[in-house]
Amino acid sequence: MSTKKLWGGRFQEQAAEWVDQFGASISFDQLMADEDIEGSLAHVKMLGHTKILPMADVDQIVAGLNGLRDDLHAGKLHFTVENEDIHMNIEALLTDRIGPVAGKLHTARSRNDQVATDFHLYLKNRLPQVIDEITTLQKTLVAMAEKNIETIMPGYTHLQHAQPISYGHYLMAYYQMLKRDKERFEFNMKHTDILPLGAAALAGTTFPIDREYTAKELGFGQVYPNSLDAVSDRDFALEFLSNSSILMMHLSRFCEEISMWVSHEFKYLELSDAYTTGSSIMPQKKNPDMAELIRGKSGRVYGHLIGLLSTMKSLPLAYNKDLQEDKEGTFDTVKTLLPSLKVFNGMLKTAKPNVERMKQATENDFSNATELADYLATKGIPFREAHGIVGKLVLKGIETHQNLQDMSLEELQAASPKIEEDVYHDLKSEVAVERRHSLGGTGFDQVRLQIKNAKQELGE
Amino acid sequence: MSTKKLWGGRFQEQAAEWVDQFGASISFDQLMADEDIEGSLAHVKMLGHTKILPMADVDQIVAGLNGLRDDLHAGKLHFTVENEDIHMNIEALLTDRIGPVAGKLHTARSRNDQVATDFHLYLKNRLPQVIDEITTLQKTLVAMAEKNIETIMPGYTHLQHAQPISYGHYLMAYYQMLKRDKERFEFNMKHTDILPLGAAALAGTTFPIDREYTAKELGFGQVYPNSLDAVSDRDFALEFLSNSSILMMHLSRFCEEISMWVSHEFKYLELSDAYTTGSSIMPQKKNPDMAELIRGKSGRVYGHLIGLLSTMKSLPLAYNKDLQEDKEGTFDTVKTLLPSLKVFNGMLKTAKPNVERMKQATENDFSNATELADYLATKGIPFREAHGIVGKLVLKGIETHQNLQDMSLEELQAASPKIEEDVYHDLKSEVAVERRHSLGGTGFDQVRLQIKNAKQELGE
Amino acid sequence: MSTKKLWGGRFQEQAAEWVDQFGASISFDQLMADEDIEGSLAHVKMLGHTKILPMADVDQIVAGLNGLRDDLHAGKLHFTVENEDIHMNIEALLTDRIGPVAGKLHTARSRNDQVATDFHLYLKNRLPQVIDEITTLQKTLVAMAEKNIETIMPGYTHLQHAQPISYGHYLMAYYQMLKRDKERFEFNMKHTDILPLGAAALAGTTFPIDREYTAKELGFGQVYPNSLDAVSDRDFALEFLSNSSILMMHLSRFCEEISMWVSHEFKYLELSDAYTTGSSIMPQKKNPDMAELIRGKSGRVYGHLIGLLSTMKSLPLAYNKDLQEDKEGTFDTVKTLLPSLKVFNGMLKTAKPNVERMKQATENDFSNATELADYLATKGIPFREAHGIVGKLVLKGIETHQNLQDMSLEELQAASPKIEEDVYHDLKSEVAVERRHSLGGTGFDQVRLQIKNAKQELGE
Amino acid sequence: MSTKKLWGGRFQEQAAEWVDQFGASISFDQLMADEDIEGSLAHVKMLGHTKILPMADVDQIVAGLNGLRDDLHAGKLHFTVENEDIHMNIEALLTDRIGPVAGKLHTARSRNDQVATDFHLYLKNRLPQVIDEITTLQKTLVAMAEKNIETIMPGYTHLQHAQPISYGHYLMAYYQMLKRDKERFEFNMKHTDILPLGAAALAGTTFPIDREYTAKELGFGQVYPNSLDAVSDRDFALEFLSNSSILMMHLSRFCEEISMWVSHEFKYLELSDAYTTGSSIMPQKKNPDMAELIRGKSGRVYGHLIGLLSTMKSLPLAYNKDLQEDKEGTFDTVKTLLPSLKVFNGMLKTAKPNVERMKQATENDFSNATELADYLATKGIPFREAHGIVGKLVLKGIETHQNLQDMSLEELQAASPKIEEDVYHDLKSEVAVERRHSLGGTGFDQVRLQIKNAKQELGE
Repeated sequence: MSTKKLWGGRFQEQAAEWVDQFGASISFDQLMADEDIEGSLAHVKMLGHTKILPMADVDQIVAGLNGLRDDLHAGKLHFTVENEDIHMNIEALLTDRIGPVAGKLHTARSRNDQVATDFHLYLKNRLPQVIDEITTLQKTLVAMAEKNIETIMPGYTHLQHAQPISYGHYLMAYYQMLKRDKERFEFNMKHTDILPLGAAALAGTTFPIDREYTAKELGFGQVYPNSLDAVSDRDFALEFLSNSSILMMHLSRFCEEISMWVSHEFKYLELSDAYTTGSSIMPQKKNPDMAELIRGKSGRVYGHLIGLLSTMKSLPLAYNKDLQEDKEGTFDTVKTLLPSLKVFNGMLKTAKPNVERMKQATENDFSNATELADYLATKGIPFREAHGIVGKLVLKGIETHQNLQDMSLEELQAASPKIEEDVYHDLKSEVAVERRHSLGGTGFDQVRLQIKNAKQELGE
Repeated sequence: MSTKKLWGGRFQEQAAEWVDQFGASISFDQLMADEDIEGSLAHVKMLGHTKILPMADVDQIVAGLNGLRDDLHAGKLHFTVENEDIHMNIEALLTDRIGPVAGKLHTARSRNDQVATDFHLYLKNRLPQVIDEITTLQKTLVAMAEKNIETIMPGYTHLQHAQPISYGHYLMAYYQMLKRDKERFEFNMKHTDILPLGAAALAGTTFPIDREYTAKELGFGQVYPNSLDAVSDRDFALEFLSNSSILMMHLSRFCEEISMWVSHEFKYLELSDAYTTGSSIMPQKKNPDMAELIRGKSGRVYGHLIGLLSTMKSLPLAYNKDLQEDKEGTFDTVKTLLPSLKVFNGMLKTAKPNVERMKQATENDFSNATELADYLATKGIPFREAHGIVGKLVLKGIETHQNLQDMSLEELQAASPKIEEDVYHDLKSEVAVERRHSLGGTGFDQVRLQIKNAKQELGE
Repeated sequence: MSTKKLWGGRFQEQAAEWVDQFGASISFDQLMADEDIEGSLAHVKMLGHTKILPMADVDQIVAGLNGLRDDLHAGKLHFTVENEDIHMNIEALLTDRIGPVAGKLHTARSRNDQVATDFHLYLKNRLPQVIDEITTLQKTLVAMAEKNIETIMPGYTHLQHAQPISYGHYLMAYYQMLKRDKERFEFNMKHTDILPLGAAALAGTTFPIDREYTAKELGFGQVYPNSLDAVSDRDFALEFLSNSSILMMHLSRFCEEISMWVSHEFKYLELSDAYTTGSSIMPQKKNPDMAELIRGKSGRVYGHLIGLLSTMKSLPLAYNKDLQEDKEGTFDTVKTLLPSLKVFNGMLKTAKPNVERMKQATENDFSNATELADYLATKGIPFREAHGIVGKLVLKGIETHQNLQDMSLEELQAASPKIEEDVYHDLKSEVAVERRHSLGGTGFDQVRLQIKNAKQELGE
Repeated sequence: MSTKKLWGGRFQEQAAEWVDQFGASISFDQLMADEDIEGSLAHVKMLGHTKILPMADVDQIVAGLNGLRDDLHAGKLHFTVENEDIHMNIEALLTDRIGPVAGKLHTARSRNDQVATDFHLYLKNRLPQVIDEITTLQKTLVAMAEKNIETIMPGYTHLQHAQPISYGHYLMAYYQMLKRDKERFEFNMKHTDILPLGAAALAGTTFPIDREYTAKELGFGQVYPNSLDAVSDRDFALEFLSNSSILMMHLSRFCEEISMWVSHEFKYLELSDAYTTGSSIMPQKKNPDMAELIRGKSGRVYGHLIGLLSTMKSLPLAYNKDLQEDKEGTFDTVKTLLPSLKVFNGMLKTAKPNVERMKQATENDFSNATELADYLATKGIPFREAHGIVGKLVLKGIETHQNLQDMSLEELQAASPKIEEDVYHDLKSEVAVERRHSLGGTGFDQVRLQIKNAKQELGE
C-alpha cells in the first residue's frame, strides 16, 4: 500500500515513526471509514455532474470506492499509521486499487472540509440511535407507571419523607426529563445537518462545484453558508456533549435512587440477578453494579464536554490541528450513551418494586403533616399559623412515639379546636395522594392524565 | 422586621449565626426580588380567582406586595440573613406591612416551587437581553463586512498563511457562529418557559388551584406536567450555561485573533484607545485588555457549567438543598455575558483594519500555491500530481527568496510545461479571492450573498 | 481622590464608564488591600535600604501607607472604579495623602509583579487557616472515634451491607483523607511561598534592588528565580483549587452518608436542630441542609478549578489581562472552604449516632457471610469453594427468611460437614469486628492503634 | 478457559452478554496485567510467610503466576469479557494452569484491595517515567538557553512588545515551570506509595496477614492505616490528573507561542520538517501540527481530571462500582503525557531561532520606553511623572514614525531637560537587557546564574 505522504512535496526531512504516531488519527478516526467513503462517493459524483471530472474518471473512482466499502464491511480493509488518518488511508487504498486516477478524487476539496463532513455524517447517523434508545426507555417508564399509578411510596425532599406520592408519578418525572433530553438531541440535529463539503481548505474553491447537489446526495438539509465557519465549527459536537451530559446527569439521579432503594435499609426495589453482580469475597452480596456504573459514567461524559470546550478555547480561525481532539471524546460519549440507556432500560424493566414496603413507609412517619396543615388552612387558619400548630404536634409525636393518625381527637383538638373527626380520613396516605388533583400533581387522576399525554407523544 | 423562622414549629435549638449565614441565600437570591414579588402577585390572584382565599385577603396581599415592589425599586427594601432567602424576606416584610393575613399568601405553594418559579422568571427575563446583544453584534459584523467585501487578507489554517480571503468573509464567519448561538438561546427559552408554580413541595396540592391561570398571569407558555420534575429540574439553567460556554468560546476565538492582529508583528488592526489600556511601568504599551479579558472569561463560564453539572450529579428527587447552588453561577454568567457582548461590540465597531498591510501580507508569501495547483488540475493533471509539482516550486522559491509570481515563465515551465502566461493572472491574491465563487466561498459575490441573507435574517 | 489614569500618557480617547467597569477589578481585588499595603511597605523599605530612594522619601511613604492601613482597618478607605484596581486605588489614596512623592513608590516595580505578590501573600495568609480548620475537624473525628471504638455498624460496599465494622473505624477513614488533604495544602505552601516582587513588568529592573531583603520583610522563604515566570505563574492558585476540589470531594462523600443516615430508612444519626432546617410547607421536616449544601458546594469548587485551568490554557508569556480572572474563583473557594469545614465540624460534633440501631442492622442481614467463608477456608477448603458454599446458604436463607446464625447446625452441615458448633461464635457481628486484627483493619485493637497514632500526629 | 463467574454462588439468572460487556473492565484494565500478577505474587508469598497457606500451595501458585507472567510478556495471554476484569481473568487462567489450588490465592484479600493495589502499582511505575521525560525536557531547555543567553528578543505582555529580553531567559521560565511540575509529581509519589493490600473488602481480615511483608515485597514505603480508606481512596490518581493538567497547561502556553513564532508574521522560529506536516490541498503549507496537537491535548487531560472528580463526588464509603471509572482517564493521561513531553522535546531541540529577526524586532518598536522612564527616575523625577513624559514622547513618535532612539537630543530634551547624550546608550536593546541585573532578571549575568543553578539541580 502506498505510504508516501500525500502532502510531502516541499518537505525534505522525515519524521520519526513515534512522531508520526503521535500525530496520526487513524487509530480512532477509522470509526468514520464508512462516512469517509460515503462522503467521497457523493463528492466524486458531484465532480462528474458538474463536469469538473470526465465521467470515465468518475465511474472508475465510484467503482473503486464501492469496492473499498465492500471490503470494509467484510472486515478486509487494513489501515496504516503511515497514512495518518482515515482520509489518506482511503485515498491510498483507492490508489492501490485503481491507480493514479484516484488522485483526481481530491479535486476541489481539502481534508479540512472532508473531516468536518465525515464528523457531521457520523453524528447525523448516531443522533437517531440515541433518540431511539431514549424513546425505548420512555416507553418502559410509561408502561411501568401505568402499572403503578396507585402504588404509594414516600416522596422525598432532602431525602426526608415529605409527602406520600404515587410511584407512577415518580416514574413519570423521569419521563419528562427524557422528553427534554430528546428535544435537545432533536435540536442538535439542526446544527449537525449542515454540510461543510465544498468549503475546501477554508475559502471555497475556484472549481464550479455544486454543493447543493452533494448535500442532496448525502441527505443534508443545508450547506454551511460560510467556508471559514464550515471547517472550524464544532458546535454540533459541543451541543452533543452538553446534551449527553445533561442526559447522564438525569440517569445518575435515578441510579442514585436505585442504589438506595435496593439497600437493606430501603428495600423498595429488587433488581434482577441479570443486572447485579456478586463479590469475590462476600458471598451474600448482590450489588447494583449497573446502576453504579451508569452513575459513575456521568463523570466521563462531563469530562469530554469540558475537554472539547477547553480545546476550542482561543483557537484562531480556520482549521487548527487541535481540532483533531474533537473526535475521541465524542466517539466515547456515543459508546457510553447507547449502552447506558440500553442497560438502564433493561435494569428498570426487570426490577420489581416492593409495593407493600413502600406503602408501609408512608404510614409510620409524619409525611401526612402537610395534610393536617392544609386541613387547618381550609378551615380558615392562615397557612403560616397552621404550619406552626402542626409543627408542635409533630414534636409531641416524636416525644410520645405517636404518628399524627395515632393521636386521639382530644390530643389533636388541644392543638387546635378546628380539628374534627374527619381529619383521620385526610391523614391516610392513599387519600393524601389521591386528593392531590392539582395539575401535574401526584393525584391518581393526574398521573393518569400524564400517562395519556405521554402515550400520545410517543405515538402509542 | 419579623425574623422568627417561618418553619420553626418543631425546632427546639437555635442555629449559631454563622451557621445561618452559611445556609442563607439572601446575599445573592435578592437579585430575584422582583421575580419573587411578581410570582407572589400572580399566585395570590389565582388564589382569589379560585376562591381559595377571599378577595378581601387577596386585595390586602396584592396591595402589600405592590407596596413592597415600589419600595424595592426605590431601593428601600432591606433584607436580613435571619430570614434566609428572598422568599422568607419578602414574606416577613409583607407581614410587617399588612399583618398576619400575609401568612395566607403561602397557601398551596412551597418554597420549592416558588424558588423554581423565580429562577425561571429570572432567566426568562434575561434570555431576550442576551439575544438582543447578540443581534447587535451581528449587525455590527454585517455592517463591517459590507465595508470590507473587497478587503484582502491572508486566510489562515494552523496560523499559517493558507489562501487569501476577503476580510468581509472572515467577519461573516462569526456572524454564522452567533446565528447558531442565538438559535440555541431561543431554544433555551422552550424549557425556561415552563411554570413550576403549583407543584408545591413536590407532589402538587389538595387546594383547587388553577395553574393555567397563574401561567397566563406570568406570561408562561406551559406548566410543568409533573410536580416532582417541576421542583427538581434545572435543565433550563444547564442549557443556559452550556449555550453561554459555546458563545464565550466563539468570542474567545475572535479575541485571540484580535490580540494577535494588534501585535507589532501583525498590525492588521488598530483598536480605539477607549478599548485598550496602558501599563503602569511601560509608557508605550497599548494593551488589548478588553479582548484578553473576554477571552479569559470563557474559563469562568465553563467553570459555572461544570459546577452545576457536578452539583446536580446523583441528586435524588425531588428538591435538595444542593440546588441552592444553581443560582450564583447562573447570575454570574448573565453578568459576564451581557457586558462581554457589549464591550466586544464596541471594541469591534471602533477598530480600524489596516487594509494595506493585510493586502500586502498576501503578496509576499506562498498563499497562492493552491491557485497554481488548481490551475494545473484544470489542465488535466491529477490533483495529487499538481500538488507535488507546486510543492517543489515552493521549496525552490524559499531557497531563492522568490514568490511564485516572481518566477519567470521558464522557471515555472521547468516544473510543468502546462504552465502558460495566463498563470500570472491567477496568482494575484485579489483574483484568487474573487474567483472562489463556490457557494459559501470567499469570492466577492459569495460574500455579498451572505450579507444579503444575513440582512434578511436580521430583518434589515 | 485622584482618578486620572496612572498609565494614561500616550492615550487620547477616554473609555466609556461601562467599559472601565468591565475591565476594573477593584470590586473584588480590594479583598487584598491589606496585602497590597503590606507589599508596598516592604518594597519601599527595600528602596530605602538600597538607597534607590532617599530615606526622607521612604519615611514619608511608609507613614502614608501606615495611615492608609489604619484607615482600612477602621473601614474608612473608599475605592473607586475609576482607579481600576487595588494597586491604583492605594497609590491614588497615597497621593491624596502625601502628595507627588507617592509617585516614587512605584519605582522598580510594575503592577505585574505587584498583583502577583499580593495574590501570593493572600494565599500564604489563608493556607494556615485552611490547615487549622482541617486540624480542628481531625480532632473532632478522633475524639468521636475514641468514643465509638466498639460501636458496631454495617460496613458498606455498593451501599450494600458488606461486613460489620466499628463506627470509630469509619470515622478514622475520614481522618486519613483529611491527613492527605492537609499534606497537600502544606505542599501548596512551597509554591506559594515564593516572592515575585522585583520581577517588575516581566524582565526585572535596572535598579539595584535587593529582592532577598524584600522577601525577608514579607516573610517569604524564596524569590522567583525567573522574572517572566514570576509574573505569569499561577501554579500556586491551581494547586490550591485542585487541593480544595479533592477536599470538597471528601466532604461530599461524608455529607452524602449523613444525608442517608438521617433518613427515615437508616436512622443511624440524629443531627442537632442547630444544623438542620425546616420546610415552609411540611411541618414535620428536619432537613440536613448543611450536609446537602456542603455536598453541593463541591461543584462550585470544581468549577473554579476548571475555570482557571481553561483561562490559563494557551496564554503566551508573560502577563496577559486574562490572568485577572485568577482571583474571584480563588477568593470564593477560600470563602467556601473555611465555613464548609467549620460547619461540617459543628454538625458532626453535635450529631448523635443511634448506636442500637446501627448494631441491630448488622444482625438481621448476611453481612457475616464472609465470616463463614473464612471459617471454611481456615478449615482447609480453598477460598473459592468456601465462597460458593456460603453463597448457596445465603440463597437458602433468603428463601426461608433465616440469617446464617438462625440456621441449625444440621442445616449448616448439610452445606459443608466441616462446620461445627463454634461457628456461631464467629457469626456474631461484634466478634466479626473484633477479630479483624489485620493492620489497618476494623478490629478494636487496630482502631485503638489508629487513634493513638492520630493523636501523636495531632500533637495531642 | 474457565468462565463461570467466581462470585456466582447466590445468583440464579444470567446476565445478557451485552450487559456483561458493559460492566466488564477487561478491555482496559488488562493494561495492569503485570501489576496484577506482581501483586498476587507478593500476596501469596506473604500467605506462605505467615503460614496461612502451606508452602506447597504457595510454591505451586508462585510457579503458576510466573508462568502466566512469562506468557503475558510473550504476548500469549488471552483475556475474555466473561471473566470481567483482569483479576478474574488472571485467576481463571491460573486455575486452568494449576487447578483448584489457584482458589487459595484469593485468601485474605478481595478484588477491592486488589484493584487498588494494581492501580497504585501502575502509577508508581509510571510516575518516574513522567519525571524522566520532564527532566529530559529541562535539560534541553537549559542547553538551548545556554546557547541563547545573548540572543535578544522582544519580551511580551498582552502580546505587545514590552521590554527586550534574552531568549535564554525566556527558555528558563519554562525550566522553572517544569521544576514545579516535577516537584508535584514527586509529591504525588507520597500518596501513591501506600499499599492498600490487606484491607480486603473494606474491613481488613481475620487471617493473620503481614501487610508490612507484602509492602516490602512490592517496594511500597507505607501501608494504608485504615482499610475503608484503602479501598475507596483515589486521591493519588486525582493528584496525578491535576498535576498533569497543570503540566499540559504549561506546554499549551509554549505551544501557543511556537504556533505564533513560526507564523509568517513573526518568523522567530523555524521548526524541523520532522515536526511539521503539509496540507493535502495547499502545497506551500508547513504546519506546526505537533505544537497544535499538544496544545489541544490539554483539553483532554482537563477533561479526565474533571471526569474523575465528578465521578467521586458524593460516593459513600467504601468501594462502589463507580470507581471502575478511575482508570481509563488516568491511563489515557499517561498515554498523552509521555509522548507529549517527548515530541515537544524533539520539536524544541530541532527548532532554529531566527536570531537576527528577533533582535530586529526589538529595534523598531518602543520597547525601550521603560529604559527612558527609568533613566528619568534615576535623575530624580518621580516615576509616575517620568512615565507620563515618556508616554507623550511615544505618542509623538507614533505620529512622526520615529522610535525613541531616532529622536534628536533636542526633541528629547523638549520633553524633559534632564535627558542627556548618554540616553542613547540606554536605549539600545542589548543594553536594556544586559542592565537588568536584578535577581531573576533578564540581564545576561542573571540568566547565567539561572543556568548554573539549573545544572546543579539537574546534577549536570
